[in-house]
Amino acid sequence: MEVKPEQIWENIEKIHGMSPVVHNITNYVVMNNTANALLALGASPVMAHAGEEVSDMVGIAGALVINIGTLSRPWVKSMGLAMKAAREKGVPIVFDPVGAGATPYRSRTARELVKTATPAIIRGNASEIMAMADGMTRTRGVDSLDSSHHALNVAKQLGLDLGAVICVSGEIDYIVDSARAFQVRNGHPMMPKVTGLGCTATALCGAFAAVEKDSFMAAVCAMAVMGITGEIAGEDCPGPGSFQVRFVDALYGLTERDMARIKVEGV
Amino acid sequence: MEVKPEQIWENIEKIHGMSPVVHNITNYVVMNNTANALLALGASPVMAHAGEEVSDMVGIAGALVINIGTLSRPWVKSMGLAMKAAREKGVPIVFDPVGAGATPYRSRTARELVKTATPAIIRGNASEIMAMADGMTRTRGVDSLDSSHHALNVAKQLGLDLGAVICVSGEIDYIVDSARAFQVRNGHPMMPKVTGLGCTATALCGAFAAVEKDSFMAAVCAMAVMGITGEIAGEDCPGPGSFQVRFVDALYGLTERDMARIKVEGV
Amino acid sequence: MEVKPEQIWENIEKIHGMSPVVHNITNYVVMNNTANALLALGASPVMAHAGEEVSDMVGIAGALVINIGTLSRPWVKSMGLAMKAAREKGVPIVFDPVGAGATPYRSRTARELVKTATPAIIRGNASEIMAMADGMTRTRGVDSLDSSHHALNVAKQLGLDLGAVICVSGEIDYIVDSARAFQVRNGHPMMPKVTGLGCTATALCGAFAAVEKDSFMAAVCAMAVMGITGEIAGEDCPGPGSFQVRFVDALYGLTERDMARIKVEGV
Repeated sequence: MEVKPEQIWENIEKIHGMSPVVHNITNYVVMNNTANALLALGASPVMAHAGEEVSDMVGIAGALVINIGTLSRPWVKSMGLAMKAAREKGVPIVFDPVGAGATPYRSRTARELVKTATPAIIRGNASEIMAMADGMTRTRGVDSLDSSHHALNVAKQLGLDLGAVICVSGEIDYIVDSARAFQVRNGHPMMPKVTGLGCTATALCGAFAAVEKDSFMAAVCAMAVMGITGEIAGEDCPGPGSFQVRFVDALYGLTERDMARIKVEGV
Repeated sequence: MEVKPEQIWENIEKIHGMSPVVHNITNYVVMNNTANALLALGASPVMAHAGEEVSDMVGIAGALVINIGTLSRPWVKSMGLAMKAAREKGVPIVFDPVGAGATPYRSRTARELVKTATPAIIRGNASEIMAMADGMTRTRGVDSLDSSHHALNVAKQLGLDLGAVICVSGEIDYIVDSARAFQVRNGHPMMPKVTGLGCTATALCGAFAAVEKDSFMAAVCAMAVMGITGEIAGEDCPGPGSFQVRFVDALYGLTERDMARIKVEGV
Repeated sequence: MEVKPEQIWENIEKIHGMSPVVHNITNYVVMNNTANALLALGASPVMAHAGEEVSDMVGIAGALVINIGTLSRPWVKSMGLAMKAAREKGVPIVFDPVGAGATPYRSRTARELVKTATPAIIRGNASEIMAMADGMTRTRGVDSLDSSHHALNVAKQLGLDLGAVICVSGEIDYIVDSARAFQVRNGHPMMPKVTGLGCTATALCGAFAAVEKDSFMAAVCAMAVMGITGEIAGEDCPGPGSFQVRFVDALYGLTERDMARIKVEGV
């Protein structure tokens, strides 16, 4: 398997053409950025978390994005309801276990939610994916938490056990499922200095999953687009405040030509 | 009736001079932008949603802005309390039925809230206003949901039935009440690509309603100022990220001269 | 006592080197800006408010920042739990009584929370600090609420009674404790036109308190850095939208040389 620039562009054009509704139950910190990034890519963001409406909202959505960044009991309950509804309606779920590993409540909640309904894609950093896997997979290790290589092995096992695509983002992003493993080496060093770009990556996975049936390919597209957009936004950028603004501009202005920047390969 | 540039400017100067407190119970996505837009126009934004304090907060406000974008049961309860307090204290209410029509819970809640206390102004896009009207007015139709002309007729009937000013925003904004109907043709095509500019419009209606007793005129001023500001922000604008920033700058820097841009006329 | 530019820079370098976790339970309006400001300064922001995890999260934090801007009963309960945990674990607390004085609920909650566990630093504007003091200190007065001089006296008494550093921000910032009183005269007139810069100041107090044991010095550093950054951001700035962006850029780009701008002296 190989990923070509034109395949990514084709999916972007599908998003432009279909404007899929992406239903987000996400954290307070990033809601504005997430909505703007989805709009800039051509999708239609919706934020709704009331138990009274999440099932109905999922029904009009092309993808459901769940992000536990500022979780609390009522929100977690709604996340579960939305995920069940998504499973029943065949709407792909993208899951972001923000901060899993930081507290027992966060790790436990993340694991319970993915048992409620298997996500098509789980995206997190190495620590979060390791925390998700802990107690869920047979893979253990003594490697340090920040070892990307170890995280990659854990992610493969987690993907196999859950039947999901796992995306481990970092300086190099890894996308794995039971059969495939790719890395994306696009991006810019200023990205970790802007809050919520990981959450944006998760939301873009949702937008691509809404138009691309192969969840693995959807995740690869999202991470490549994140990285390429970051590279464009980062050119002569004075700081993370401007980066946040330019990222949205760059995402809005992406052209087929920009896709040639992709650095995606099998691992 | 006619709206002159100097009338709009006079109301902006009143806002500058009085810095009216605008009490917002709004959605998580736009709170930052809403607060910054109100500050840029010269008003004093307050965000407070606790049942324990909303009545007291309404008491020091010049207007109450209710926006159901990320509604949930406790927030809806507080919205009701605040609206009742506003009615008792004679504080004008501006209501934004974000997403009405998308789910039954959202449509039902929007209708129930406006029955609690009649807003001075209801602002939404065509779909939202149609959803508000559905079951509340006698006007029905087979026209498509995006038919501005049909929405205008529905809005007129809704305004008559409720005794409120109805503002239907879109490429052309319509402001109607039982006796009058105006359209505002200012604006910029990038505005729908920035999340929450509709919510900003609603908040500006609140700022103008705090200084202008004629709610119809307040809504016209708000929509004209939105459109003019959008035109200024949109000049040579590289994308929606920059647009969001420039919009606040432009709102802050508005001059009497800019008011000459208005395209307001009766319909 | 005197504050030298190199002392401030030394603390900034400590933040860069240690990347302390700053645990924020703050308001919805400013979460994004707060997180970005902390990242730009080199700290690691965490936003978590669930009762199930706040004690655990405090355990990995270098400071706890409590901000009541959009308070509600469940959040106040979590604030109390987090503050108790912080006291037990010796984690410094920074407290921001946003809007104290505006409603009885807000004033009462602010006073109750600081009784739960004494903050290392309380930062607010003159009205908020006066509202905190009302009923807590013996100092009363007939001076107007905006009298900085009167607020300074009230702050001194409040600091003495609580055993906390009190920071009264405004055109001139005052930092006082039982023994010391300093003023910071850095800043830019556009700062009050951007929502949440006061909340950012509070969050930066948290970052400095995580690396500087003397809470008084931590607060002086934070207010000096806020003011200096504001001055840099404000140069030829077209409006508050750009100011918000440039502030983050400037905070990220601060150099030792910039510290020479400080205008700090005893009062």
